[in-house]
Amino acid sequence: MSLTRIHNLAISLDGFTTGEPQTLETPFGHAGERLHQWMFATRFWNETVGKPGGSEGADHAFAVRHGQGFGAEIMGANKFGPPGWQDDPAWQGWWGPNPPFHTPTFVLTHRPRPPLVMEGGTTFHFLDTSPAEALEIAREAADGQDVRVGGGASVVREFLSAGLVDRMHLVQVPIVLGRGVRVWDGLEALEETYDVEAVSTPSGVTHLSFTRKVPA
Amino acid sequence: MSLTRIHNLAISLDGFTTGEPQTLETPFGHAGERLHQWMFATRFWNETVGKPGGSEGADHAFAVRHGQGFGAEIMGANKFGPPGWQDDPAWQGWWGPNPPFHTPTFVLTHRPRPPLVMEGGTTFHFLDTSPAEALEIAREAADGQDVRVGGGASVVREFLSAGLVDRMHLVQVPIVLGRGVRVWDGLEALEETYDVEAVSTPSGVTHLSFTRKVPA
Repeated sequence: MSLTRIHNLAISLDGFTTGEPQTLETPFGHAGERLHQWMFATRFWNETVGKPGGSEGADHAFAVRHGQGFGAEIMGANKFGPPGWQDDPAWQGWWGPNPPFHTPTFVLTHRPRPPLVMEGGTTFHFLDTSPAEALEIAREAADGQDVRVGGGASVVREFLSAGLVDRMHLVQVPIVLGRGVRVWDGLEALEETYDVEAVSTPSGVTHLSFTRKVPA
Repeated sequence: MSLTRIHNLAISLDGFTTGEPQTLETPFGHAGERLHQWMFATRFWNETVGKPGGSEGADHAFAVRHGQGFGAEIMGANKFGPPGWQDDPAWQGWWGPNPPFHTPTFVLTHRPRPPLVMEGGTTFHFLDTSPAEALEIAREAADGQDVRVGGGASVVREFLSAGLVDRMHLVQVPIVLGRGVRVWDGLEALEETYDVEAVSTPSGVTHLSFTRKVPA
């Protein structure tokens, strides 16, 4: 069965997935890469960037599932590029010629453009549509595998609010960002729909796994 | 050495220490007692209310320190009573004749009243003063023991912002409250001043221990 999953979404103690302001030079604003250091230490990340080494423990076990079992990704316009990327016809995302998605990847934007075929299996498709419709399209493209909702926080909130998410994996990093885009806003009583497991690891982060409850 | 400590302060995933609205019937608003169930399951709590039983593990080990080594408490007006308690000369706090503080307890309010001597060693003193001055008075009363900053969230934020807190123990409960009083607001970069340890326990909560860094 094809599930809709959020995975490896890092948040600060105060729930921000990114700082501010987002620019070409600072994709995560004043947060820099501090939300992702836990991941950079894992074997998963080292293999992703073609380096040896990396930790093998719980952080790796969680992180590596980012690439497993997904047949498509959906992301928001703010994940694909800095403010104004829609005005730059040459913009191809942050990730260089071989993006780390390796599947059809659907970018939600009010200004769609033709599909962009990249190396390594990633093709960016641009959709001006609702979360539910985008999910239907991505599900078809995923061909029986799972669909990842890749963020940022506002897209994650939209999909959660619409009841479209089966599994969510958040990684809480022990920093207080104070400002940015917060994942929790508008999600009161989320625990009524999801079982939540918390596991802290020696790196200092806490993995929060949300599993949608089976209706009684 | 006498430290200033925050202990057993429970927060939701989205950082609220209480819901809303606070009334005489609902001291924690729509949060009810959901932020405190982890504590009610411990031997610490059972002994506090004179009952047998209760869990003996990590939650108990953290919780029991609430009563150990403190010589005074400071709390905000919103912890002492519901909105408007200042207009009720008979109000003596939420806790009945024998409050669980057992030390001098300083209530910050713009409308001070004479001290209130309760059973079991608790005397409420009412102060209209700054956090730093209140701490000086409480430190004197604590007679070499630690001073607990008892909350709520706005008082905790004031003391943290003023650099007055040596240790903080938060307990993150896996619920999303969505509204209430948030502990994190205005505390950007708190991790620069504190080492943070996260430990999740089988009950589902995550204990966050903040230890003030020793200046280099």
